[in-house]
Amino acid sequence: MAVDYSLYLVTDRILVGSKDFLLSIKKALEGGVTLLQLREKETNSREFYEIGVKIKELTAEFRVPLIINDRVDLALALDADGVHVGQQDLPLVKVRNILGPDKILGYSVSSLEEALQGERMGADYLGAGPVFPTGSKKDASEAIGLAKLKEIKAGVSLPVVGIGGIGATNLSAVKETGIDGVSVISAILSQEDPCAAAKGLIDLWRN
Amino acid sequence: MAVDYSLYLVTDRILVGSKDFLLSIKKALEGGVTLLQLREKETNSREFYEIGVKIKELTAEFRVPLIINDRVDLALALDADGVHVGQQDLPLVKVRNILGPDKILGYSVSSLEEALQGERMGADYLGAGPVFPTGSKKDASEAIGLAKLKEIKAGVSLPVVGIGGIGATNLSAVKETGIDGVSVISAILSQEDPCAAAKGLIDLWRN
Ligand code: NI
Repeated sequence: MAVDYSLYLVTDRILVGSKDFLLSIKKALEGGVTLLQLREKETNSREFYEIGVKIKELTAEFRVPLIINDRVDLALALDADGVHVGQQDLPLVKVRNILGPDKILGYSVSSLEEALQGERMGADYLGAGPVFPTGSKKDASEAIGLAKLKEIKAGVSLPVVGIGGIGATNLSAVKETGIDGVSVISAILSQEDPCAAAKGLIDLWRN
Repeated sequence: MAVDYSLYLVTDRILVGSKDFLLSIKKALEGGVTLLQLREKETNSREFYEIGVKIKELTAEFRVPLIINDRVDLALALDADGVHVGQQDLPLVKVRNILGPDKILGYSVSSLEEALQGERMGADYLGAGPVFPTGSKKDASEAIGLAKLKEIKAGVSLPVVGIGGIGATNLSAVKETGIDGVSVISAILSQEDPCAAAKGLIDLWRN
């Protein structure tokens, strides 16, 4: 499957608030998000599943792949399009094993070494960052900056998505590193109009 | 696989403390625990996995089946013997689907209605309770008592394990309900000598 990584929305229900969550996601998809990651760290499996069912209806409507953060079992239960794992999640090789060869497998990296490891271990794409300092990810480490992002992209053959502190003001600079897309949370979900915000970002990316 | 449900230890690393956790489990297995459930609610997937690898070495040494709480992906990654899910976890049918037909699937119930549902949906055994009031399970609901436990056991053909507040003082009364085993946490893990505690309980059960 050819995946369009241009504008990758990572969801954060705590940031948005449960009430408007689905509506915000829908607006973001209307605005042009090309890939969606559902992340639920603070909930039980049943609630995660039930939110996932609703999110999947939306991503199916907009024909956008749905990626599940960390929980391979949830990805399988929801028949999502893939899983995204980080350094604190299950080992990549185990994940690929459980997930099968056809689902999309993403891997968070913050160095070329981790990126090469991800490539070797069967990742389909890499989420590299945090590119800039950010407040939206609790466990975010030190920012890697544009030079390191460029180095990672140049060193691997996998698609690379930049994540962390990316928004309208710095998106063009990020794109110049040669990466395949940007991953955002607050640049869409913290904005008053997530549709307009997504549209603004995808327009910037495509020009 | 014929499973011996007689003395089912549910682990609680918070109760035991990380430092002595593996040693306590080992002593409990030496004492005669017949089934072990690994429950890790407050940790990331990687740490869960790494603890699981160590626990599996122990259960393999003692030829005791290892059941993973909630996380089907962890059960698969560890090649554990099964999964235990509750009302707040993934739907039972989805779990069976992901897990395949050969792994043990346990289901927490607190009524005959839930027990019959579990039987219909593909569970291999039922954990019924809380039999008595208990402090060791955070999300524990009201105690069901011995009469209801007996009713559940009589109403299903699956093996039933009683859980919640069971220890040396009430084990014989619990056994008289006709159930297949007892599940304990603190009656083994909070005792000074987990080996002696397990041995005491299994002797009581078998006499
Ligand atoms: Ni969790």
